[in-house]
Amino acid sequence: MHVAIPLYPGFTALDAVGPYTVLAFAPGWTVTFVAGAVGPVRDDRERLNLVAEAAYAQIARPDVVLVPGGPGALNAVRDEELLSWLREAHEHSHWTASVCVGSTLLAAAGLLTGRRATGHWAFRAGLAGFGAVPVDDRVVVDGKVVTAAGVSAGIDMALALLARASDATTAKTVQLALEYDPRPPFDAGSPQSAPVSLWRPALDLIGPSMADHATLPTPRNA
Amino acid sequence: MHVAIPLYPGFTALDAVGPYTVLAFAPGWTVTFVAGAVGPVRDDRERLNLVAEAAYAQIARPDVVLVPGGPGALNAVRDEELLSWLREAHEHSHWTASVCVGSTLLAAAGLLTGRRATGHWAFRAGLAGFGAVPVDDRVVVDGKVVTAAGVSAGIDMALALLARASDATTAKTVQLALEYDPRPPFDAGSPQSAPVSLWRPALDLIGPSMADHATLPTPRNA
Repeated sequence: MHVAIPLYPGFTALDAVGPYTVLAFAPGWTVTFVAGAVGPVRDDRERLNLVAEAAYAQIARPDVVLVPGGPGALNAVRDEELLSWLREAHEHSHWTASVCVGSTLLAAAGLLTGRRATGHWAFRAGLAGFGAVPVDDRVVVDGKVVTAAGVSAGIDMALALLARASDATTAKTVQLALEYDPRPPFDAGSPQSAPVSLWRPALDLIGPSMADHATLPTPRNA
Repeated sequence: MHVAIPLYPGFTALDAVGPYTVLAFAPGWTVTFVAGAVGPVRDDRERLNLVAEAAYAQIARPDVVLVPGGPGALNAVRDEELLSWLREAHEHSHWTASVCVGSTLLAAAGLLTGRRATGHWAFRAGLAGFGAVPVDDRVVVDGKVVTAAGVSAGIDMALALLARASDATTAKTVQLALEYDPRPPFDAGSPQSAPVSLWRPALDLIGPSMADHATLPTPRNA
Protein backbone atom coordinates (compact mmCIF):
# COMPACT_ATOMS: atom_id res chain seq x y z
CA MET A 1 0.00 0.00 0.00
CA HIS A 2 1.34 3.39 -0.96
CA VAL A 3 0.15 6.31 1.14
CA ALA A 4 0.56 9.93 0.04
CA ILE A 5 0.31 12.68 2.67
CA PRO A 6 0.06 16.16 1.13
CA LEU A 7 1.76 18.99 3.00
CA TYR A 8 0.83 22.66 2.73
CA PRO A 9 2.18 25.68 4.64
CA GLY A 10 0.59 25.85 8.08
CA PHE A 11 -0.27 22.15 8.49
CA THR A 12 -0.26 20.84 12.07
CA ALA A 13 2.74 18.55 12.52
CA LEU A 14 1.08 15.85 14.63
CA ASP A 15 -1.82 15.60 12.13
CA ALA A 16 0.67 14.36 9.55
CA VAL A 17 3.25 12.53 11.66
CA GLY A 18 0.85 10.57 13.89
CA PRO A 19 -0.72 8.64 10.98
CA TYR A 20 2.62 8.59 9.14
CA THR A 21 4.29 6.75 12.01
CA VAL A 22 1.45 4.25 12.39
CA LEU A 23 1.27 3.44 8.68
CA ALA A 24 5.01 3.54 7.97
CA PHE A 25 5.51 0.91 10.71
CA ALA A 26 3.11 -1.48 8.97
CA PRO A 27 4.78 -4.20 6.88
CA GLY A 28 4.31 -3.60 3.17
CA TRP A 29 3.15 -0.01 3.62
CA THR A 30 5.10 2.95 2.24
CA VAL A 31 4.32 6.58 2.99
CA THR A 32 5.43 9.57 0.92
CA PHE A 33 5.02 13.23 1.85
CA VAL A 34 4.01 15.22 -1.23
CA ALA A 35 3.51 18.92 -2.00
CA GLY A 36 3.42 21.34 -4.90
CA ALA A 37 7.19 21.02 -5.08
CA VAL A 38 9.85 18.83 -3.45
CA GLY A 39 11.40 20.48 -0.41
CA PRO A 40 10.66 21.59 3.14
CA VAL A 41 7.15 22.69 4.11
CA ARG A 42 6.67 24.78 7.26
CA ASP A 43 4.10 23.88 9.89
CA ASP A 44 1.58 26.05 11.74
CA ARG A 45 3.92 26.80 14.66
CA GLU A 46 6.60 27.92 12.17
CA ARG A 47 9.20 25.90 14.08
CA LEU A 48 9.12 22.66 12.08
CA ASN A 49 9.99 21.94 8.46
CA LEU A 50 9.04 18.57 7.07
CA VAL A 51 10.43 17.65 3.66
CA ALA A 52 8.03 16.84 0.82
CA GLU A 53 9.81 14.02 -1.01
CA ALA A 54 7.74 14.23 -4.19
CA ALA A 55 5.65 16.72 -6.17
CA TYR A 56 1.94 16.01 -6.69
CA ALA A 57 2.42 15.05 -10.33
CA GLN A 58 4.92 12.34 -9.35
CA ILE A 59 2.34 10.49 -7.24
CA ALA A 60 -0.95 10.93 -9.04
CA ARG A 61 -2.52 7.66 -7.95
CA PRO A 62 -1.57 6.61 -4.42
CA ASP A 63 -3.48 3.71 -2.85
CA VAL A 64 -4.26 5.93 0.14
CA VAL A 65 -4.46 9.72 0.27
CA LEU A 66 -4.35 11.15 3.79
CA VAL A 67 -4.85 14.88 4.32
CA PRO A 68 -3.63 16.57 7.52
CA GLY A 69 -5.27 19.63 9.01
CA GLY A 70 -3.92 22.86 10.41
CA PRO A 71 -4.64 26.59 10.26
CA GLY A 72 -3.03 26.62 6.82
CA ALA A 73 -6.09 24.76 5.52
CA LEU A 74 -7.85 28.16 5.44
CA ASN A 75 -5.56 29.13 2.56
CA ALA A 76 -5.21 25.63 1.14
CA VAL A 77 -8.95 25.50 0.32
CA ARG A 78 -8.07 27.94 -2.46
CA ASP A 79 -5.03 25.94 -3.67
CA GLU A 80 -6.37 24.61 -6.98
CA GLU A 81 -3.29 22.46 -7.55
CA LEU A 82 -3.90 20.65 -4.25
CA LEU A 83 -7.65 20.35 -4.82
CA SER A 84 -7.20 18.96 -8.36
CA TRP A 85 -4.66 16.46 -7.09
CA LEU A 86 -7.05 15.40 -4.32
CA ARG A 87 -9.86 14.84 -6.82
CA GLU A 88 -7.68 12.77 -9.15
CA ALA A 89 -6.12 10.81 -6.26
CA HIS A 90 -9.53 10.13 -4.72
CA GLU A 91 -10.92 8.83 -8.00
CA HIS A 92 -8.44 5.97 -7.96
CA SER A 93 -7.68 5.54 -4.24
CA HIS A 94 -8.52 2.52 -2.14
CA TRP A 95 -8.92 4.85 0.82
CA THR A 96 -9.19 8.62 1.19
CA ALA A 97 -8.55 9.91 4.70
CA SER A 98 -8.17 13.10 6.69
CA VAL A 99 -7.23 14.38 10.12
CA CYS A 100 -8.69 17.47 11.82
CA VAL A 101 -9.64 20.19 9.32
CA GLY A 102 -8.12 18.04 6.59
CA SER A 103 -11.76 17.03 6.13
CA THR A 104 -12.54 20.64 5.18
CA LEU A 105 -10.02 20.27 2.35
CA LEU A 106 -11.65 17.04 1.20
CA ALA A 107 -15.00 18.83 1.37
CA ALA A 108 -13.70 21.83 -0.57
CA ALA A 109 -12.52 19.42 -3.26
CA GLY A 110 -16.10 18.17 -3.49
CA LEU A 111 -15.29 14.73 -2.11
CA LEU A 112 -17.59 14.70 0.93
CA THR A 113 -20.92 15.58 -0.68
CA GLY A 114 -23.57 13.48 1.02
CA ARG A 115 -20.94 11.69 3.11
CA ARG A 116 -20.79 11.34 6.89
CA ALA A 117 -17.58 12.92 8.14
CA THR A 118 -15.86 14.34 11.19
CA GLY A 119 -13.10 16.85 11.89
CA HIS A 120 -11.79 19.05 14.70
CA TRP A 121 -14.54 19.64 17.26
CA ALA A 122 -14.68 23.38 16.58
CA PHE A 123 -14.79 23.09 12.78
CA ARG A 124 -16.84 19.93 12.29
CA ALA A 125 -20.20 21.69 11.91
CA GLY A 126 -18.79 23.76 9.04
CA LEU A 127 -18.59 20.62 6.89
CA ALA A 128 -22.35 20.90 6.35
CA GLY A 129 -21.72 24.02 4.26
CA PHE A 130 -20.02 21.75 1.70
CA GLY A 131 -22.87 19.25 1.63
CA ALA A 132 -21.30 16.77 4.04
CA VAL A 133 -23.06 15.27 7.06
CA PRO A 134 -21.05 16.19 10.19
CA VAL A 135 -20.79 13.40 12.76
CA ASP A 136 -19.61 13.88 16.36
CA ASP A 137 -17.22 10.97 16.50
CA ARG A 138 -13.49 10.44 16.72
CA VAL A 139 -13.21 8.36 13.56
CA VAL A 140 -15.90 8.15 10.88
CA VAL A 141 -15.85 5.66 8.00
CA ASP A 142 -18.18 6.25 5.05
CA GLY A 143 -17.37 3.94 2.16
CA LYS A 144 -13.71 4.45 1.37
CA VAL A 145 -13.56 7.82 3.12
CA VAL A 146 -12.15 7.82 6.66
CA THR A 147 -12.12 11.09 8.58
CA ALA A 148 -10.71 11.79 12.04
CA ALA A 149 -11.40 14.40 14.71
CA GLY A 150 -8.76 16.94 15.77
CA VAL A 151 -4.97 16.48 15.52
CA SER A 152 -4.21 13.54 17.83
CA ALA A 153 -7.23 11.62 16.47
CA GLY A 154 -5.11 10.81 13.43
CA ILE A 155 -3.39 8.07 15.42
CA ASP A 156 -6.68 6.36 16.23
CA MET A 157 -7.82 6.82 12.62
CA ALA A 158 -4.63 5.34 11.16
CA LEU A 159 -4.94 2.24 13.37
CA ALA A 160 -8.59 1.84 12.33
CA LEU A 161 -7.64 2.29 8.68
CA LEU A 162 -4.81 -0.22 9.00
CA ALA A 163 -7.16 -2.77 10.56
CA ARG A 164 -9.56 -2.43 7.64
CA ALA A 165 -7.00 -2.22 4.84
CA SER A 166 -4.71 -4.96 6.26
CA ASP A 167 -6.07 -6.75 9.34
CA ALA A 168 -6.61 -6.27 13.05
CA THR A 169 -3.51 -8.27 14.03
CA THR A 170 -1.29 -5.95 11.99
CA ALA A 171 -2.89 -2.90 13.60
CA LYS A 172 -2.45 -4.35 17.09
CA THR A 173 1.18 -5.22 16.39
CA VAL A 174 1.90 -1.64 15.29
CA GLN A 175 0.02 -0.35 18.34
CA LEU A 176 2.25 -2.44 20.61
CA ALA A 177 5.43 -1.40 18.78
CA LEU A 178 4.45 2.26 19.31
CA GLU A 179 3.30 1.52 22.88
CA TYR A 180 0.04 3.30 22.12
CA ASP A 181 -1.58 2.80 25.51
CA PRO A 182 -2.58 6.44 26.09
CA ARG A 183 -2.94 7.85 29.59
CA PRO A 184 -3.69 11.56 29.26
CA PRO A 185 -2.82 13.27 32.54
CA PHE A 186 -6.11 15.22 32.33
CA ASP A 187 -9.58 14.53 31.01
CA ALA A 188 -9.79 17.66 28.90
CA GLY A 189 -9.40 16.42 25.34
CA SER A 190 -12.90 17.14 24.10
CA PRO A 191 -15.43 19.94 24.60
CA GLN A 192 -17.59 17.38 26.44
CA SER A 193 -14.90 16.78 29.08
CA ALA A 194 -13.08 20.14 29.19
CA PRO A 195 -14.56 23.11 31.05
CA VAL A 196 -16.43 25.48 28.72
CA SER A 197 -14.09 28.22 29.97
CA LEU A 198 -11.24 26.53 28.05
CA TRP A 199 -13.01 26.38 24.68
CA ARG A 200 -12.13 29.89 23.54
CA PRO A 201 -8.53 29.81 24.89
CA ALA A 202 -7.99 26.50 23.04
CA LEU A 203 -9.19 28.06 19.79
CA ASP A 204 -6.93 31.03 20.37
CA LEU A 205 -3.97 28.65 20.67
CA ILE A 206 -4.80 27.19 17.27
CA GLY A 207 -4.78 30.71 15.88
CA PRO A 208 -6.98 33.79 15.66
CA SER A 209 -7.61 33.24 11.95
CA MET A 210 -9.05 29.79 12.68
CA ALA A 211 -11.01 30.93 15.72
CA ASP A 212 -13.04 33.26 13.47
CA HIS A 213 -14.24 30.21 11.51
CA ALA A 214 -15.16 28.06 14.49
CA THR A 215 -18.62 26.80 15.33
CA LEU A 216 -18.72 26.07 19.05
CA PRO A 217 -20.80 23.14 20.28
CA THR A 218 -23.75 23.83 22.58
CA PRO A 219 -22.56 23.74 26.20
CA ARG A 220 -24.06 20.81 28.11
CA ASN A 221 -25.80 23.05 30.62
CA ALA A 222 -27.35 25.32 27.97
CA MET B 1 10.59 28.32 27.78
CA HIS B 2 12.93 27.21 25.04
CA VAL B 3 12.87 23.49 24.22
CA ALA B 4 15.58 21.81 22.17
CA ILE B 5 14.83 18.44 20.56
CA PRO B 6 17.96 16.74 19.18
CA LEU B 7 17.54 14.70 16.01
CA TYR B 8 19.81 11.85 14.93
CA PRO B 9 19.52 9.49 11.94
CA GLY B 10 16.98 6.78 12.68
CA PHE B 11 14.88 8.66 15.26
CA THR B 12 11.20 7.70 15.39
CA ALA B 13 9.14 10.56 13.98
CA LEU B 14 6.26 10.46 16.47
CA ASP B 15 8.71 10.45 19.41
CA ALA B 16 9.83 13.92 18.34
CA VAL B 17 6.68 15.39 16.81
CA GLY B 18 4.20 14.34 19.51
CA PRO B 19 5.92 16.37 22.26
CA TYR B 20 6.88 19.06 19.76
CA THR B 21 3.25 19.70 18.88
CA VAL B 22 2.12 19.75 22.51
CA LEU B 23 4.86 22.14 23.64
CA ALA B 24 4.88 24.35 20.54
CA PHE B 25 1.15 24.99 21.07
CA ALA B 26 1.79 26.29 24.60
CA PRO B 27 1.85 30.09 24.90
CA GLY B 28 5.37 31.36 25.55
CA TRP B 29 7.03 28.07 24.60
CA THR B 30 9.39 27.77 21.64
CA VAL B 31 10.74 24.50 20.30
CA THR B 32 13.84 24.09 18.12
CA PHE B 33 15.01 20.90 16.42
CA VAL B 34 18.79 20.62 16.71
CA ALA B 35 21.42 18.24 15.32
CA GLY B 36 25.12 18.03 14.58
CA ALA B 37 24.49 20.30 11.60
CA VAL B 38 21.56 22.31 10.26
CA GLY B 39 19.59 20.39 7.65
CA PRO B 40 17.28 17.42 7.15
CA VAL B 41 17.62 14.36 9.39
CA ARG B 42 16.13 11.05 8.24
CA ASP B 43 13.87 8.98 10.46
CA ASP B 44 13.85 5.24 11.20
CA ARG B 45 11.39 4.40 8.39
CA GLU B 46 13.60 6.31 5.93
CA ARG B 47 10.53 8.04 4.51
CA LEU B 48 10.56 11.25 6.55
CA ASN B 49 13.08 14.05 6.73
CA LEU B 50 12.69 16.61 9.48
CA VAL B 51 14.86 19.72 9.31
CA ALA B 52 17.22 20.51 12.18
CA GLU B 53 17.02 24.30 12.42
CA ALA B 54 20.15 24.75 14.53
CA ALA B 55 23.45 23.01 15.30
CA TYR B 56 24.14 21.86 18.86
CA ALA B 57 26.61 24.65 19.49
CA GLN B 58 24.00 27.27 18.66
CA ILE B 59 21.70 26.12 21.45
CA ALA B 60 23.98 25.07 24.28
CA ARG B 61 21.65 25.94 27.14
CA PRO B 62 17.98 25.30 26.37
CA ASP B 63 15.49 25.48 29.23
CA VAL B 64 14.24 22.02 28.28
CA VAL B 65 16.11 19.27 26.47
CA LEU B 66 13.86 16.51 25.10
CA VAL B 67 15.42 13.44 23.51
CA PRO B 68 13.39 11.24 21.12
CA GLY B 69 13.99 7.53 20.70
CA GLY B 70 14.24 5.30 17.68
CA PRO B 71 16.39 2.45 16.37
CA GLY B 72 19.05 5.03 15.51
CA ALA B 73 19.69 5.42 19.24
CA LEU B 74 21.79 2.24 18.97
CA ASN B 75 24.33 4.24 16.98
CA ALA B 76 23.68 7.54 18.70
CA VAL B 77 24.92 6.14 22.05
CA ARG B 78 28.37 6.38 20.47
CA ASP B 79 27.86 9.92 19.13
CA GLU B 80 30.16 11.86 21.44
CA GLU B 81 29.04 15.21 20.03
CA LEU B 82 25.44 14.42 21.00
CA LEU B 83 26.39 13.00 24.40
CA SER B 84 28.57 16.01 25.26
CA TRP B 85 25.79 18.36 24.24
CA LEU B 86 23.31 16.43 26.39
CA ARG B 87 25.61 16.66 29.43
CA GLU B 88 26.13 20.40 29.00
CA ALA B 89 22.44 21.05 28.28
CA HIS B 90 21.37 18.96 31.28
CA GLU B 91 23.68 20.82 33.60
CA HIS B 92 21.78 24.04 32.99
CA SER B 93 18.30 22.81 32.02
CA HIS B 94 15.12 23.35 33.98
CA TRP B 95 13.88 20.01 32.66
CA THR B 96 15.55 17.12 30.88
CA ALA B 97 13.17 14.74 29.15
CA SER B 98 13.07 11.72 26.87
CA VAL B 99 10.66 9.55 24.90
CA CYS B 100 11.07 5.81 24.27
CA VAL B 101 14.74 4.75 24.05
CA GLY B 102 15.69 8.41 24.27
CA SER B 103 16.15 7.47 27.94
CA THR B 104 18.94 5.10 26.87
CA LEU B 105 20.70 8.12 25.36
CA LEU B 106 20.28 10.09 28.58
CA ALA B 107 21.61 7.05 30.45
CA ALA B 108 24.57 6.67 28.09
CA ALA B 109 25.41 10.33 28.74
CA GLY B 110 25.55 9.46 32.44
CA LEU B 111 22.50 11.51 33.35
CA LEU B 112 20.30 8.78 34.83
CA THR B 113 22.65 7.31 37.42
CA GLY B 114 20.58 6.49 40.49
CA ARG B 115 17.48 7.98 38.90
CA ARG B 116 14.09 6.34 38.38
CA ALA B 117 13.32 6.25 34.68
CA THR B 118 11.18 4.58 32.03
CA GLY B 119 11.43 3.92 28.30
CA HIS B 120 9.97 1.64 25.64
CA TRP B 121 8.58 -1.52 27.26
CA ALA B 122 11.11 -3.78 25.54
CA PHE B 123 14.16 -1.67 26.36
CA ARG B 124 13.30 -0.30 29.78
CA ALA B 125 15.08 -3.03 31.76
CA GLY B 126 18.32 -2.24 29.93
CA LEU B 127 18.48 1.14 31.70
CA ALA B 128 19.71 -0.72 34.81
CA GLY B 129 22.96 -1.44 32.97
CA PHE B 130 23.66 2.31 33.10
CA GLY B 131 22.92 2.58 36.82
CA ALA B 132 19.35 3.84 36.42
CA VAL B 133 16.33 2.40 38.22
CA PRO B 134 13.84 1.18 35.58
CA VAL B 135 10.20 1.88 36.42
CA ASP B 136 7.22 0.30 34.64
CA ASP B 137 5.22 3.44 34.11
CA ARG B 138 4.12 5.59 31.21
CA VAL B 139 5.68 8.80 32.54
CA VAL B 140 8.29 8.96 35.32
CA VAL B 141 9.41 12.17 36.99
CA ASP B 142 12.60 12.11 39.09
CA GLY B 143 13.70 15.60 40.04
CA LYS B 144 14.04 17.55 36.83
CA VAL B 145 14.26 14.42 34.68
CA VAL B 146 11.04 13.30 32.96
CA THR B 147 11.09 10.08 30.96
CA ALA B 148 8.30 8.52 28.89
CA ALA B 149 7.52 5.01 27.71
CA GLY B 150 7.50 4.09 24.01
CA VAL B 151 6.84 6.46 21.10
CA SER B 152 3.26 7.67 21.64
CA ALA B 153 3.91 8.14 25.38
CA GLY B 154 5.72 11.35 24.48
CA ILE B 155 2.34 13.09 24.14
CA ASP B 156 1.33 12.15 27.69
CA MET B 157 4.79 13.13 28.94
CA ALA B 158 4.73 16.52 27.24
CA LEU B 159 1.34 17.34 28.78
CA ALA B 160 2.60 16.27 32.22
CA LEU B 161 5.76 18.35 31.74
CA LEU B 162 3.72 21.35 30.60
CA ALA B 163 1.49 21.09 33.67
CA ARG B 164 4.52 21.13 35.95
CA ALA B 165 6.55 23.75 34.10
CA SER B 166 3.60 26.05 33.39
CA ASP B 167 0.30 24.99 34.99
CA ALA B 168 -2.51 22.46 34.65
CA THR B 169 -4.87 24.92 32.92
CA THR B 170 -2.32 25.52 30.17
CA ALA B 171 -1.85 21.77 29.69
CA LYS B 172 -5.61 21.18 29.56
CA THR B 173 -6.06 24.00 27.05
CA VAL B 174 -3.42 22.51 24.75
CA GLN B 175 -5.00 19.07 25.21
CA LEU B 176 -8.36 20.48 24.07
CA ALA B 177 -6.81 22.35 21.13
CA LEU B 178 -5.22 19.06 19.97
CA GLU B 179 -8.42 17.13 20.79
CA TYR B 180 -6.33 14.62 22.73
CA ASP B 181 -9.17 12.37 23.85
CA PRO B 182 -7.62 9.09 22.72
CA ARG B 183 -9.78 6.12 21.75
CA PRO B 184 -7.47 3.38 20.52
CA PRO B 185 -9.50 0.94 18.41
CA PHE B 186 -7.78 -1.96 20.20
CA ASP B 187 -6.44 -2.60 23.68
CA ALA B 188 -3.02 -3.74 22.54
CA GLY B 189 -0.73 -0.85 23.40
CA SER B 190 1.27 -2.50 26.15
CA PRO B 191 2.70 -5.97 26.75
CA GLN B 192 0.19 -6.30 29.62
CA SER B 193 -2.77 -5.87 27.27
CA ALA B 194 -1.44 -7.29 23.98
CA PRO B 195 -1.23 -11.04 23.41
CA VAL B 196 2.25 -12.42 24.10
CA SER B 197 2.21 -13.74 20.53
CA LEU B 198 2.50 -10.13 19.29
CA TRP B 199 5.54 -9.18 21.36
CA ARG B 200 8.16 -10.53 18.97
CA PRO B 201 6.39 -9.32 15.78
CA ALA B 202 6.15 -5.83 17.33
CA LEU B 203 9.89 -5.84 18.01
CA ASP B 204 10.55 -7.00 14.47
CA LEU B 205 8.59 -4.00 13.18
CA ILE B 206 10.83 -1.68 15.15
CA GLY B 207 13.81 -3.35 13.53
CA PRO B 208 15.93 -6.47 13.81
CA SER B 209 18.89 -4.52 15.18
CA MET B 210 16.74 -3.27 18.05
CA ALA B 211 15.08 -6.63 18.66
CA ASP B 212 18.51 -8.08 19.50
CA HIS B 213 18.79 -5.60 22.38
CA ALA B 214 15.33 -6.15 23.84
CA THR B 215 14.54 -7.50 27.28
CA LEU B 216 11.06 -8.98 27.20
CA PRO B 217 8.86 -8.69 30.27
CA THR B 218 7.78 -11.86 32.04
CA PRO B 219 4.48 -13.08 30.54
CA ARG B 220 1.61 -12.85 33.02
CA ASN B 221 0.94 -16.57 32.93
CA ALA B 222 4.60 -17.54 33.44
